[in-house]
Amino acid sequence: MRRKITLKHIARELDVSISTVSKALKGSSEISEDTKDKVQAFAKLYNYKPNNIAVSLKNKRTKNIGVIIPDIVHHFFTTVFRGIEHYANQRGYNVIVCVSDESFDREVVNMEMLANGSIDGFIMALAGETQLKKDFRHLREVMDQGMPLVLFDRVTDEIACDKVVLNDEQISYEATMSLINEGRKRIALLTTDSFFSVSNAREQGYKRALRESNITVDENHILRLPYNKEIDGVGSFLKKNNINAVLTVNEIFGVHCLSAAQGIGLNIPTDLSVIGFTDGILSKYSVPKLTTVAQHGDKMGALAAKLLIEKIENDFNEEDEVFTTEVIQATIIRRKSTIN
Amino acid sequence: MRRKITLKHIARELDVSISTVSKALKGSSEISEDTKDKVQAFAKLYNYKPNNIAVSLKNKRTKNIGVIIPDIVHHFFTTVFRGIEHYANQRGYNVIVCVSDESFDREVVNMEMLANGSIDGFIMALAGETQLKKDFRHLREVMDQGMPLVLFDRVTDEIACDKVVLNDEQISYEATMSLINEGRKRIALLTTDSFFSVSNAREQGYKRALRESNITVDENHILRLPYNKEIDGVGSFLKKNNINAVLTVNEIFGVHCLSAAQGIGLNIPTDLSVIGFTDGILSKYSVPKLTTVAQHGDKMGALAAKLLIEKIENDFNEEDEVFTTEVIQATIIRRKSTIN
Repeated sequence: MRRKITLKHIARELDVSISTVSKALKGSSEISEDTKDKVQAFAKLYNYKPNNIAVSLKNKRTKNIGVIIPDIVHHFFTTVFRGIEHYANQRGYNVIVCVSDESFDREVVNMEMLANGSIDGFIMALAGETQLKKDFRHLREVMDQGMPLVLFDRVTDEIACDKVVLNDEQISYEATMSLINEGRKRIALLTTDSFFSVSNAREQGYKRALRESNITVDENHILRLPYNKEIDGVGSFLKKNNINAVLTVNEIFGVHCLSAAQGIGLNIPTDLSVIGFTDGILSKYSVPKLTTVAQHGDKMGALAAKLLIEKIENDFNEEDEVFTTEVIQATIIRRKSTIN
Repeated sequence: MRRKITLKHIARELDVSISTVSKALKGSSEISEDTKDKVQAFAKLYNYKPNNIAVSLKNKRTKNIGVIIPDIVHHFFTTVFRGIEHYANQRGYNVIVCVSDESFDREVVNMEMLANGSIDGFIMALAGETQLKKDFRHLREVMDQGMPLVLFDRVTDEIACDKVVLNDEQISYEATMSLINEGRKRIALLTTDSFFSVSNAREQGYKRALRESNITVDENHILRLPYNKEIDGVGSFLKKNNINAVLTVNEIFGVHCLSAAQGIGLNIPTDLSVIGFTDGILSKYSVPKLTTVAQHGDKMGALAAKLLIEKIENDFNEEDEVFTTEVIQATIIRRKSTIN
């Protein structure tokens, strides 16, 4: 059989990005006529079909589930993976993981590779870059072929599929409220860029708690830190803004904040309370131990696997297909970085 | 095409372990005649061929590399993965990961699944249970089909293939020597069960340093802790044996030791020095910051990927095939849990 050609092959051959190829094939006005002509000619020559990535799936069960996560060195995603694996193995499925490294292109490449007959369905959290670009065609292509897809944690309203999310806005509201109930008024948020769906939801919950408590939302109290890079400037940020409580959207920011605060002589929790998202291993060994928002990644993974396997094993007519969004309830684990 | 039958199918059908099926097919005397008869009859009926797992590989390049790691919630393995991925992506290869969860059966199942046409070669670290059982037939089967295999970190002398390892014995010797040079004499080793090849090598290095320094090796000073389970009893162990320095074979044992020692009133590093293997994120945020053995997982991964891709892209005659073992040089990162 002749080897199938993918978006990636075309991109490599013409030295353009996968995203450019995808847009050129759809005739997007963002792409120059010259590039569009080249891409389309190449695609025609090699008989590229956008729908070729999931071949006759219904007839060929592999008993494999494909998981795409944005980052492998990340406690939350690895615990979700363990939840998926545990449930899937019990049901007789194997699990294959690919990592997008927060890159749109790698997400597309991994998805094409796995969809090419290796797996029965996908469980994935979107790459940061995909959430920034809002380009979800690779997801639609896979679903159009009847390949079930479950999104978890980093999801999008633009794709109709089963989803498992955390009650991010609400638990962020509750965590902020618990800081306010300690008598804190100068509450900071340490977060990432707001195109991450979960960071955005957490920011909304933080702001709602402040507003409902008649505390003015001060954008200067929101510090956006780079993700997966060296963190710097937290101590001076705390000092300059006279901050007395902090909510952080992940565990590393949380323990980094503990360390930076103690570095400028603040006592925790007397002078500063800290709550961090992700109840991982760092929180248990930090000094003091960090109060955290437990996201129950294992539950999220098991539920995502359950939803996916139901879709794989039941043949729905497309018209009858119903998608659900399950919400995992986060909980606050109280340790020594807060007063209450 | 009729679905291929695997060891796993036979094991599930007859309700025995994969290892039993494998042994029964080879006529092993460990297995009862009755079970052997059943397994062999079943295998014959369904036309099982041990050699069917890697079909005509040489004619069918996938540009995918399969990685099997024992644990996904583990800093060292995830950094090796990142090293593999970074190098492989540059060379135009995708990477698929499966996790054995330290289980022999899952390792076999994952290997069968990936070898079934999805990938061009394997990079793997052996599951704990595989090292305990010393059953490597699944590796041999894959290699017999001409599928290249690179082992890293957790390796075995029983399989001739390319390997990338750490100088575990030597760096453990050097770390122990540096504790001795601080004037410590009551030096403990916090380790896992000794069937882990790396733990065994680290134990040998620890013992060599003691012997060369005329310090009697006291087996009571070696504490074997469960892996991936709750850790308990470290404080009382330190107290009872009047320990004043500790080498730990991983980072979690290291930070746990810091915490347990401070819990019984020991000052670090005045009363107790600690060095831990794995230079991960825990060490940077522990109090005090932990002196560690950096294993350079990224380098190990990149080198493993390089060796594998060379094998994939060059057609060797079997007689000409040469295997190498590359040794990564670990380094000691000095922080605040040691005097020097």
